[in-house]
Amino acid sequence: MLNFSEQPHKRKNLLTGEYILVSPHRSKRPWQGQVEDLAPDDRPQYDPKCYLCPGNARADGTVNPAYKDSFVFVNDFSALLEDTALDAFNEEDLLQAETERGICKVISFSPRHDLTLPEMSAAEIKSVVDLWQREFRELSAYEWIKYIQIFENKGSIMGCSNPHPHGQIWAQSSLPVEIQKESEQQAIYFRSKGRTLLQDYLDVELRKNERIIVNNDYFVALVPFWAAWPYETMIISKRAVPSILAFTEEEKEDLAKTLQELTIRYDNIFKTSFPYSAGMHQAPVNSGEQPAWHWHMHFYPPLLRSATVKKFMVGYEMLANPQRDITPEQAADTLKQQATVHYKAQ
Amino acid sequence: MLNFSEQPHKRKNLLTGEYILVSPHRSKRPWQGQVEDLAPDDRPQYDPKCYLCPGNARADGTVNPAYKDSFVFVNDFSALLEDTALDAFNEEDLLQAETERGICKVISFSPRHDLTLPEMSAAEIKSVVDLWQREFRELSAYEWIKYIQIFENKGSIMGCSNPHPHGQIWAQSSLPVEIQKESEQQAIYFRSKGRTLLQDYLDVELRKNERIIVNNDYFVALVPFWAAWPYETMIISKRAVPSILAFTEEEKEDLAKTLQELTIRYDNIFKTSFPYSAGMHQAPVNSGEQPAWHWHMHFYPPLLRSATVKKFMVGYEMLANPQRDITPEQAADTLKQQATVHYKAQ
Ligand SMILES: O=P(O)(O)O[C@H]1O[C@H](CO)[C@@H](O)[C@H](O)[C@H]1O
Ligand SMILES: O=P(O)(O)O[C@H]1O[C@H](CO)[C@@H](O)[C@H](O)[C@H]1O
Repeated sequence: MLNFSEQPHKRKNLLTGEYILVSPHRSKRPWQGQVEDLAPDDRPQYDPKCYLCPGNARADGTVNPAYKDSFVFVNDFSALLEDTALDAFNEEDLLQAETERGICKVISFSPRHDLTLPEMSAAEIKSVVDLWQREFRELSAYEWIKYIQIFENKGSIMGCSNPHPHGQIWAQSSLPVEIQKESEQQAIYFRSKGRTLLQDYLDVELRKNERIIVNNDYFVALVPFWAAWPYETMIISKRAVPSILAFTEEEKEDLAKTLQELTIRYDNIFKTSFPYSAGMHQAPVNSGEQPAWHWHMHFYPPLLRSATVKKFMVGYEMLANPQRDITPEQAADTLKQQATVHYKAQ
Repeated sequence: MLNFSEQPHKRKNLLTGEYILVSPHRSKRPWQGQVEDLAPDDRPQYDPKCYLCPGNARADGTVNPAYKDSFVFVNDFSALLEDTALDAFNEEDLLQAETERGICKVISFSPRHDLTLPEMSAAEIKSVVDLWQREFRELSAYEWIKYIQIFENKGSIMGCSNPHPHGQIWAQSSLPVEIQKESEQQAIYFRSKGRTLLQDYLDVELRKNERIIVNNDYFVALVPFWAAWPYETMIISKRAVPSILAFTEEEKEDLAKTLQELTIRYDNIFKTSFPYSAGMHQAPVNSGEQPAWHWHMHFYPPLLRSATVKKFMVGYEMLANPQRDITPEQAADTLKQQATVHYKAQ
């Protein structure tokens, strides 16, 4: 029988249909490479130079309101623009391009410059979840929008250029490549079984109880069997719904609690503000019924050995195949051992 | 007509079949995020502590020979192992895994600790190309090996833990995910046109002459129309051959010259040792004739704005779609403007 903690092996990512490579024996390798700087963790509650703090002016001169919970605005440096005209380019099918229309927004999670999700109360996180749901509803009302990506880059190592707690939303006129893959795999499964892929996957994970980190009333956080990043996790809704639109008040409260517990456990691993990129995957909008789509949220954190040594997804990984050293089960064990009270509050 | 330098658009990567997103207007965005440390660039020719320098001992106690050009050995911390038994795991098709067998090697490019490819002579680089070809031939002789990935991680920002110039080879028993994609796209094209995809793509690029950086007798270096990384390039052989095995002495000399010129231009952009992950994509081995496969080499360099500010492929890119700011044509212009003499030698 395949020995997961000793033998190099690959595992299938059910959502993309692609494999990841696991080299469990390799975590013994010494590290003499790049070590990250630790960002100083003594931010003021209010920073007069921060473009996200209440009452401050942004790049275009607009002044932020004196907001009390979360706050959303159109990104001053949007990667996608609403006024992009539809157009295409094709040279002998060898050079192919088409314009992409979109709206990019920034969401401040809190008026407090010094907080992050794991340091906020469940009620405060709930107000972020409410805003996500509201934005999803409002953006879906634009008929030309087909997909809405809600995400957060946390920490400078993840390209976040402002430590004020915030996330982003990019809504666009076509389906991004990762969504196409997940749509296809979920559709194939649903057609053959009449249940969502994640419904059955969640059942088997709950039964095995090896990779489950948080098991709440309406949401589960787990290390997926096919995790590529060292401490990659996924939050899955127990109810098979295509998007955040379907969540009730109770579910939103439960999601806030799940987010809080998961991110506290993350921070506690290395007693540091744990960096990650995280975001929801949801059904395309304005594209008909989506019964195969099951709401979930991915967390891709880069740290591997310590607060300052990350996993490098480089040469082999970029050219050939994503690869990891510690197994998903080892990562799950570490996450399970963490306290559910934030280390700063202990 | 689609305005590439003004309108957000997506371009099709012919080799993977996937799109990348281009946001040309976004390069005006100011940067307040992470700035990399510049590694000190004053290495000695010989470092007594380096496990790649001639005559030094490695992790397992083996002493390197007093080699004069390039040198290869099995990685002391191989991610894949030759003695892995074939095995598989499947739980209701929801948890799927199989063992992966392989051989990982390290190639020192030079006995000199202080050099990098762009600082080596064409003759010295040719000896590395010879070694790549020899290794490819020898590894292909193992019938269970199906794919051989030759690559280099250059610079600590790319996870390289030893500045001694070196690359790696990972040979394995199944096809990595990127190779599956490229195999499929190239096969579809070859079946319908009877020519390789890159043959026709190269023709159109040479005709347009907008993204060509080096045009030698046997090889072309260009910025692909669908480049995702800021200064991503690709070297393509003018002859449609499936792997490095087919290269003649003249071709290998020409490849060495092409590698030298491309990497010198890279270093000259920011007058720094330009980091990248680079590697060849070649036909699977021990898998029958591969007429659709066309040898090429990808360069994925992370730097965007300066020697210390890189492009972050994070939240949106990981969850949805690779995205770039400067256009491939702007990157090609910058590369074309560089001198072909290394800045340190000027
Ligand atoms: O093999 P090395 O140089 O120790 O390690 C480096 O390259 C490997 C192959 O791309 C990656 O898996 C590692 O994350 C990276 O640090
Ligand atoms: O939008 P920001 O925070 O300026 O930028 C950050 O997130 C974006 C979306 O993942 C990336 O494209 C950028 O490379 C990254 O620096």
